[in-house]
Amino acid sequence: MKKMDETSTTQKLVQWVFDSQWTDIDVSIKNSVASSWMNWLACALGGASSPDSDRLIRALAPFGHGDAQLIGRAEKFDPANAALIHAFTSNILDFDDTHWPTGIHPAGTVASALVAWASQTVVSGEDFLHAFLLGMEVECRIGLAVSPGHYERGWHITASCGVFGAAIAVGRLMRLDPQQLAWAVGHAATQSSGLVASLGTMAKSLNIAHAARNGLLSAQLASHGITANDRVLEARFGFFEVMGSRPLDESICEGLGQNWIASHNTYKPYPCGFLLHPTLVACLAIDDTPIFALDDIEQIMVNVHPLSKIRADRIHPVDGLESKLSLQHAVAIALLRGETGVRNFTDEAANDLVVHACREKIRIIADEGLGTDEARLVIHLQSGRVITRAISGAQPPMSPQALEQKFRELVAFGAPHCNSDELLETLAMFPQMANAANLIAMTIPQS
Amino acid sequence: MKKMDETSTTQKLVQWVFDSQWTDIDVSIKNSVASSWMNWLACALGGASSPDSDRLIRALAPFGHGDAQLIGRAEKFDPANAALIHAFTSNILDFDDTHWPTGIHPAGTVASALVAWASQTVVSGEDFLHAFLLGMEVECRIGLAVSPGHYERGWHITASCGVFGAAIAVGRLMRLDPQQLAWAVGHAATQSSGLVASLGTMAKSLNIAHAARNGLLSAQLASHGITANDRVLEARFGFFEVMGSRPLDESICEGLGQNWIASHNTYKPYPCGFLLHPTLVACLAIDDTPIFALDDIEQIMVNVHPLSKIRADRIHPVDGLESKLSLQHAVAIALLRGETGVRNFTDEAANDLVVHACREKIRIIADEGLGTDEARLVIHLQSGRVITRAISGAQPPMSPQALEQKFRELVAFGAPHCNSDELLETLAMFPQMANAANLIAMTIPQS
Repeated sequence: MKKMDETSTTQKLVQWVFDSQWTDIDVSIKNSVASSWMNWLACALGGASSPDSDRLIRALAPFGHGDAQLIGRAEKFDPANAALIHAFTSNILDFDDTHWPTGIHPAGTVASALVAWASQTVVSGEDFLHAFLLGMEVECRIGLAVSPGHYERGWHITASCGVFGAAIAVGRLMRLDPQQLAWAVGHAATQSSGLVASLGTMAKSLNIAHAARNGLLSAQLASHGITANDRVLEARFGFFEVMGSRPLDESICEGLGQNWIASHNTYKPYPCGFLLHPTLVACLAIDDTPIFALDDIEQIMVNVHPLSKIRADRIHPVDGLESKLSLQHAVAIALLRGETGVRNFTDEAANDLVVHACREKIRIIADEGLGTDEARLVIHLQSGRVITRAISGAQPPMSPQALEQKFRELVAFGAPHCNSDELLETLAMFPQMANAANLIAMTIPQS
Repeated sequence: MKKMDETSTTQKLVQWVFDSQWTDIDVSIKNSVASSWMNWLACALGGASSPDSDRLIRALAPFGHGDAQLIGRAEKFDPANAALIHAFTSNILDFDDTHWPTGIHPAGTVASALVAWASQTVVSGEDFLHAFLLGMEVECRIGLAVSPGHYERGWHITASCGVFGAAIAVGRLMRLDPQQLAWAVGHAATQSSGLVASLGTMAKSLNIAHAARNGLLSAQLASHGITANDRVLEARFGFFEVMGSRPLDESICEGLGQNWIASHNTYKPYPCGFLLHPTLVACLAIDDTPIFALDDIEQIMVNVHPLSKIRADRIHPVDGLESKLSLQHAVAIALLRGETGVRNFTDEAANDLVVHACREKIRIIADEGLGTDEARLVIHLQSGRVITRAISGAQPPMSPQALEQKFRELVAFGAPHCNSDELLETLAMFPQMANAANLIAMTIPQS
C-alpha cells in the first residue's frame, strides 16, 4: 500500500480516515452521530412526499434505473440517483441540521450517499455510523478552513463542502485504501459546486443533492483506480486556491480524533434557514403576548448579523421555498400565529394577505456587533408599548425528548404510513444492527 | 408564455436561443458546425476503446442502466451517463477542438449530451446541428465574458462553461420555452465546476464528462418545472459574481446571430493540450533536420506565453495523460521522432528513457511578449549550430482533407470495426437525415 505523504494536508486527512477505529471513539461522540442520524431520517421522511420531491422523481424517471430503495417511497433508482433524491427530500423542508461555525448542514450529503450505498450492500449499523461520523468530520473541517469567506463570497457551503463528506463516508464504507481515498477527495473537489444565487428556488436543495451524488460517484471512481489529483486541497489550482478564502493552514488536521468538530452538530427546531432562527427565538420569547393582531403592530426593527441581512432580508418571498429564507416572513408568522411549523412556510403562507401586510412593517438592520447566532427585536405597538427581546449566543441544544418529538411530527407529516414507535425502537438499537438496510426497508410503503 | 426581461443578460440570451431559426443561418456557419461535429465524432471514436474508457465504464456499471447507445461501443446506459461517457471518451486523447480566445474545447460537452439525448428520441440532423451550434455559441460567449481571469485563476473552462452549452443544446432539442431555458441555465450555473488541478489525471476528462451530464440534467429538470435562479449570470452570488473575473457587461449579447463565436472553433492537429501546439508547430517547421539524435542536442530553450508555462512546464510527466500537458515531452517526441501522433503520448512514451533524457535538456521560459498561440524555439546543438524557429499568430485552420484524414486515423485507432468510408458518406448527408440516431447506430460493434 502506497505510503501517504505527511506533508500533504489531503493525504494526512485521508490516512486518518483510513486508520480510524470505532472502538477508539468516545461514547458521547457516538451518541451525537446517532442523533444526527435520527434527525436526518426525520427530515428525509418529512420531505419524502412533498410535491417538489414528486416532481424531482418524475424528472429523473428516464435516468438511473436500479435497485436502491428510497426512504419513505416506493420507487427505486440506482445508488447515484438515490443519493441525489435523498439529499433533496431531506433538505426540502429546510428543517435539517446546522453546524453553526460554518453554516453547513452536515448530515445531508453524507447520510444521503451512505443510505443509497448501504441499500445495495450489507453494512452494519456500526460501520454506517462510523462512516457517517468521518464524512461529517472531514466536511466540517474543510468548511472551517474556508470560513467565513467561502460562504460569504457566494458558495453554498453545504454543497461545496458536503461533496467531500459524501466521498469520504462512502469511500470508508467501501474500504478504500489511502491512495484511493486521496483520489476520491480529488474527484470530489473538482466537482465542488453550488451557488448561493440558487437559494430560494428548488435548485437550492438540488445543490446538496448533486453534492451527495457526486461524492458517492467520487468514491466509486476512485475504487476503480480512476485517478485524480491526490493532493487537491493544497495543490496549485486546487480547492483552497480556487474556492477557499485564505491560505490553507495546519488547523485543518489539528486534534483529529480528539476534538470532533462534527459532534457540534445541532438540529433545527424550525423549518427554515438557520440564519432566521435567532430572530424566531426572540419572537417566541415574548411570554405575555404570544400572538398579535396585525393592527396591533406599528413597526418592527430586527437587528441581525450582516450576513443574515444579505441572505434573508426578503420582504415578499414569492413562494414557500423562498419564505424559508425571509426574516420578515419568519417574524410575521411567529408573531401573528405564535407557531413556526412546516405549515407556516408553504406557498399558501407566503401569499397570505395578513402575513404580507405584516411583513411590510418589518425592517431588517445589519448589525456588526451581533454574531450569526444573535438577534435583537424591537416591536413598536400601536398602543405605544415597545417590546424588546435580544438573543445572545448559542441556543441550548435540542433535548432528546424534543428530537423525538420532531421525529414523530415529521413522520406524521411526510410519511404517515410509517410507524414512529417501531422506527424509534429500531433506531435505538441501530448500532447493533447487522444490516442497516433493514431500517431503510421499514420506511417503504407497502403496496 | 412568460415574457423574458430584456434587462436580464440571462433572459436575453435564452430568448435568442428560443427564437433562433436554422433557415436564418449562413451556410458558412452551417459548414463550420458540420466540421465541429465530424471532428467530435472522430475523437469519440478514437477514444472509445481506450483503457481509461474501459475503466470508466466498469466503474459506472452499477449506475445508469438504460437504452442510450454509446458511440463505438456495445454497452448501453441512461442518457445522463451516456453523456458523461461520451464526453470522457471524446476528450481522453486530448485531440478534440479549441476555441483559442477562451481555451474552451467547445464541442465536447455539447455533442456528448446531444448524442445521448438523441439516441433516445427522434431528432433530425438539422435540429441536431442547430442545437449543437446554439449550445457552443452560448458556451463560448459566456467563456469570453469570464476570460482570461476565470481559466487563469484555476477554473477548467471547458467544464465550467461547457455545462451551459450542454444545457442550452439539450434544452433547445426539448423545445423548452424561454422560462424553462432560463431555469436550465440556472441549474447549469449552480453545477458549474472543474479545477485545473485535475489536469494531468483522469479527472481532467471527467471534468468535461460531469459537465455534459450536468448540462443534460439541467435541461431535464427545467423541462419538469423544477425552478432555479432564472437570472443566474448576473444575479447577486450568481455565476459572474462568484466564478467570473470581471463585471458582466453587454458584450455577451452583442451581435447574437450575426457574429457566430462558435464558428471560430478549430480542430486539433496534435493529441495534446492546445497550449503545446505552437511549440510543436515550431519543432515541425525545422525542414532540413527533421529528426535529431539525443546526443546531437545540447540544450533547448522554449519561450511561451506565461500561462503556457504555468500549465505545461512539466519536465517529467508520470504517464501518458500527463505527457499531453508537458511542453518538454512535446518537444522531445517531435525532435527525436519527427512525429506527434497518439502513440507518442502514451505511458510508454512518457517513460521512454531517451525521451526522458531529452526532456532534461529543455528549458521553458515565460515570455510576456508572446500570445498563447505563439512560441519561440532555440535549439543549441552539440555541433555548435543554433536553430531558431518562431511561430507567430494563429495557425491556418485544418483543411477539409486534413480533417478527413484525422477522422480516418482516429476511426482506425479506436474503432477499427467501423467503416470510415460509410461514416464519411453518412456525415456528408447528415443535415438531411430524419433521425440522427441512425448515424450513432452505425458505430456500434456488431456482436
